[in-house]
Amino acid sequence: MDQFTNVTVVKKANIYFDGAVTSRTVQFGDGTKKTLGIMLPGEYTFNTGVAEIMEILAGDLQYRVGDSGDWKAVTGGESFQVPSNSAFTMKVATVSDYCCSFLPE
Amino acid sequence: MDQFTNVTVVKKANIYFDGAVTSRTVQFGDGTKKTLGIMLPGEYTFNTGVAEIMEILAGDLQYRVGDSGDWKAVTGGESFQVPSNSAFTMKVATVSDYCCSFLPE
Repeated sequence: MDQFTNVTVVKKANIYFDGAVTSRTVQFGDGTKKTLGIMLPGEYTFNTGVAEIMEILAGDLQYRVGDSGDWKAVTGGESFQVPSNSAFTMKVATVSDYCCSFLPE
Repeated sequence: MDQFTNVTVVKKANIYFDGAVTSRTVQFGDGTKKTLGIMLPGEYTFNTGVAEIMEILAGDLQYRVGDSGDWKAVTGGESFQVPSNSAFTMKVATVSDYCCSFLPE
C-alpha cells in the first residue's frame, strides 16, 4: 500500500534532535495512529509507550532494543517491532524514510 | 485549522537537498494537493509549476522570488505566494515547518 486514504493528518510536524528526525501524525478511522517520518544520518534513541512497528520505506540503518545486545541491520522494505515501554536506538547510515505504527494495547 | 481530515497521504516522502528539505504529499477530495514539509537551516531554490502558497507553521526564514529583488522575512504564522513557472529561494535560519498549497490553474 503506497498511500493512506480517508485519514486525518495533523499539520504540525513532530520534530526531534534539532530536526534530524521529523514526522507527521496520521490518524485512522479505527482510532489507530501512525507517523510518517524522516531520519537523517546519525544515532537516535527513542522510548516507546505502546509497542511500535517501524517500517523502513527507504534507507539503511541498524537498531537495537535496550542498551545491550546485537545491532540488527534494516533497509528499505523491511520492518522491525519494538516492545511497549522500552527504549530503542538506531544508527542511521543514509537518509531514511519510515512509517511507524503504534499498536493498540 | 490544525489538521486535515478525509484526505489521502502518500507514504513515500519527497526528499530534496540530501534530506535537508523533506515533505509528505496530502491529496484532497476536490483534487487539490498540499505538501507538509520540514526545512533545516540552509539556502534552497525551488521552481514552481502552478502557483504556490507557502504557509510557515513554525520557524524563521527569508525568501525572494527570482534571483534579484529584496529578501523578505517570514516567520511562523505567516505565508507568502509564489507565481507559477518561477523560481524562489529561501534562506532558512531555524528548522522550519511548512504547508505548501498548490493553486489550481
